[in-house]
Amino acid sequence: MRGVVMHSPGDVRVEKREDPKIIEPTDAIIRLTATCICGSDLWPYRGAEAVDHLAMGHEYVGVVEEIGSDVMTMKLGDFVVGSFVISDNTCEICQAGYQSKCVHAEFVHGTIGTQAEKARIPYADGTLVVTPGQPDPELIPSLLAASDVLGTGWFAAVAAEISPGKTVAVVGDGAVGLMGVLAAKQLGAERIVAMSRHPERQELARFYGATDIVEERGDEGVARIRELTNGLGAHSVIEAVGTQEAMMQALDATRPGGHVGFVGVSHGVAIDGGSLFFSEVHLHGGPAPVRRFLPDLIQLIWDRKIDPGKVFDLTLPLEEAAEGYKAMDERRATKVLLTL
Amino acid sequence: MRGVVMHSPGDVRVEKREDPKIIEPTDAIIRLTATCICGSDLWPYRGAEAVDHLAMGHEYVGVVEEIGSDVMTMKLGDFVVGSFVISDNTCEICQAGYQSKCVHAEFVHGTIGTQAEKARIPYADGTLVVTPGQPDPELIPSLLAASDVLGTGWFAAVAAEISPGKTVAVVGDGAVGLMGVLAAKQLGAERIVAMSRHPERQELARFYGATDIVEERGDEGVARIRELTNGLGAHSVIEAVGTQEAMMQALDATRPGGHVGFVGVSHGVAIDGGSLFFSEVHLHGGPAPVRRFLPDLIQLIWDRKIDPGKVFDLTLPLEEAAEGYKAMDERRATKVLLTL
Repeated sequence: MRGVVMHSPGDVRVEKREDPKIIEPTDAIIRLTATCICGSDLWPYRGAEAVDHLAMGHEYVGVVEEIGSDVMTMKLGDFVVGSFVISDNTCEICQAGYQSKCVHAEFVHGTIGTQAEKARIPYADGTLVVTPGQPDPELIPSLLAASDVLGTGWFAAVAAEISPGKTVAVVGDGAVGLMGVLAAKQLGAERIVAMSRHPERQELARFYGATDIVEERGDEGVARIRELTNGLGAHSVIEAVGTQEAMMQALDATRPGGHVGFVGVSHGVAIDGGSLFFSEVHLHGGPAPVRRFLPDLIQLIWDRKIDPGKVFDLTLPLEEAAEGYKAMDERRATKVLLTL
Repeated sequence: MRGVVMHSPGDVRVEKREDPKIIEPTDAIIRLTATCICGSDLWPYRGAEAVDHLAMGHEYVGVVEEIGSDVMTMKLGDFVVGSFVISDNTCEICQAGYQSKCVHAEFVHGTIGTQAEKARIPYADGTLVVTPGQPDPELIPSLLAASDVLGTGWFAAVAAEISPGKTVAVVGDGAVGLMGVLAAKQLGAERIVAMSRHPERQELARFYGATDIVEERGDEGVARIRELTNGLGAHSVIEAVGTQEAMMQALDATRPGGHVGFVGVSHGVAIDGGSLFFSEVHLHGGPAPVRRFLPDLIQLIWDRKIDPGKVFDLTLPLEEAAEGYKAMDERRATKVLLTL
C-alpha cells in the first residue's frame, strides 16, 4: 500500500509501505476513506521532535475490511471512526474516561500511521466506533475531525469545566483551538473569547461561536481578558498550542478557582510551582481521551448539529501529502484533509 | 501588647507591639485565646524566605473585643475562629469558594500577625465565624486547628477530589498532611496511605484514619504506591510539603485522570509541562480558602466528630514562642500551640 513516511524533519514522502495484517484476534484492518495532517505532525516536521522514517498519521475514518476472531462490535463494510490512541475501553483507566492512558495504550502515530491506504487497528472494539450507517460524503470531513481535533478540543473544554454562563478564553487559533470554541458553545458558555490575529481564523472562530476576538498576546493578551472580565480573569481557559508563552497566557488569564484545560502538546514548557500555587487555578490536560467522547460527537455530526469539518481548508490526494505539510507549516492552511 | 516578631531568620522575639485599633467600620478587634506556629513559619525561620522584623502568626481563635460600625454577624464577647487570609466573603471570587483569593484578600501573616495578645481583623464578617457558643476549653486546640492546618488539609482533600471508595496517598506527615488524612477519612476514602518515616506521626496518621504507611520516598515511594494500586497509582494525592521532591512524588503517584491537591507552599518547584501533559492528572492547589469550610469544620468539632487538636504536641506560653519555633524546626514538635 501507499503511505506517508517522514524520513527526517521537513522530508515527507509518500511511498510503498507493507500491507497491514491481522496479528491479534482483537485487531481490525480498515481501508481509509480519508485522513489528515495534524498540527502535532508539524513538531517533527520542524525538527522540534526527533524523527527517522516515521509512519505518519493518527486521524482516520474508513471501512472495516477484515476483523480478528474476537472483534464483536463491527462487521466487514462498517464505517468507523477511531481515536488517535489505541484503547481496550475496558480497563479501570478507560472506564474512568481516560482511554488515552489505557493500560494497553499505543499511539497510532509512528507505529501504525494512518496517512496510508490501510491500517491495522489493535483493540478494534475499544478504539473504533461504528457510525449509525454509511455516511453521506459531506459528513466525511466532520467525522474525520472527530478522530482528533474535535475530540481534543472537546476534551480541552471539558477539562476547563466549561458550563452554561461561563466566560471562556481560547489560546491558540489552530484547528484544535477552533474546535475548543465549538465545544465551548455546545457546552453553553456565555462568552467565548478567541485569541487570534489571523483574519480567516477569526472568522471561523466566530462561525463556531466566538463572541469576542483578542488579537494581543502574552501579558497584553492577558490584560485584555482581564478587562473583559471585571479584572478577574476567565472562568475557563483552553490552551491549544503547547509553548511556554501559550501556557503562561492561559494560566494568567484564568481567575482564581478557574480551570485551564491544556491540550497543546507541551514542548519546553516549565510551570513555576509558586506561580501556580498563588494563581489557585485548576490545571488539567494531556492527550485527549477521544474515545470517551466519540459516540456523542458522531451523533452530533450525524444529526447535523455541529459542523467541525469546516476546519479543513485544504484538500489534497494522499499522494500530495508533502504539499499539505508545507501548506500547514507555512500557515497557508489550518488543516489539510487527504483523500484516498 | 506583646507579640512575636521575627527579626531575621532564626531570630524570633516576643516583644511589645502597638495595640491594634479599629480603622475601618468592617474591622473587629479580637483578644486571642490561643494561637500557634505554622509549618510555613519555618520557611522564613530557615532563611528560605526573606524576613525583616515581621509580625508573625496567622492562626487564631479568640473573643471579640471591639467591632466597627458595619460589623453585623458578631457582638462583643462572641468566640470566633478566623481564616489566615482576610476575605470579604461577598465578591465573585469568594462566592465561588475561593476566599483566599478574595478581591480584598490580605494575608494575616506579616501584616496583622496573630502570635500576639490582640489582632485587628479587617472584613470581620467575611473572615471570622462565630462558634455556636463559648467553647469548652478542651475544644480550643481543635478550633484553632480549623483556622489553618485543618482547613488547609481539608481543602487539599477537596482539591484532590477525594470521595467514597477512592485510594488516597498523602505526601507530607506534618500537621497539614495529618489533617489531610483526617479529611480523607471524613470524605469517605476507602484506603488512605500516609507517607511517613516518623514513628509518632505514623501513629497519629493511623489515629486520623490512615490504613497504610509507606516509609519510602521519591521514586521508591511512588513504586510502593503503585504496588498498592495494581500498578495504576492512587486516585487522589495530597501534596503537603512544597518541595520539588514532594511535588514529583505526588504527581508520579497519581493515576491518569486522578487528582493532586497541593497545599505545601511551593518553594523552588518547577513542573515540567511535558511530564504533566502525559501524566494526565488534575492539579489544583494554593492557599486554602479556609473560610469556605469553617462553618462545617466548626460544627464537626463542636459535635465531637473530629479531633484535629491532637495535632498539637507541644503547648507553650506565648512568651516562649522562640522555643516553639526551635522545637518545630528540629522536628521535636509537629505543631506548637501558644497560650495567652
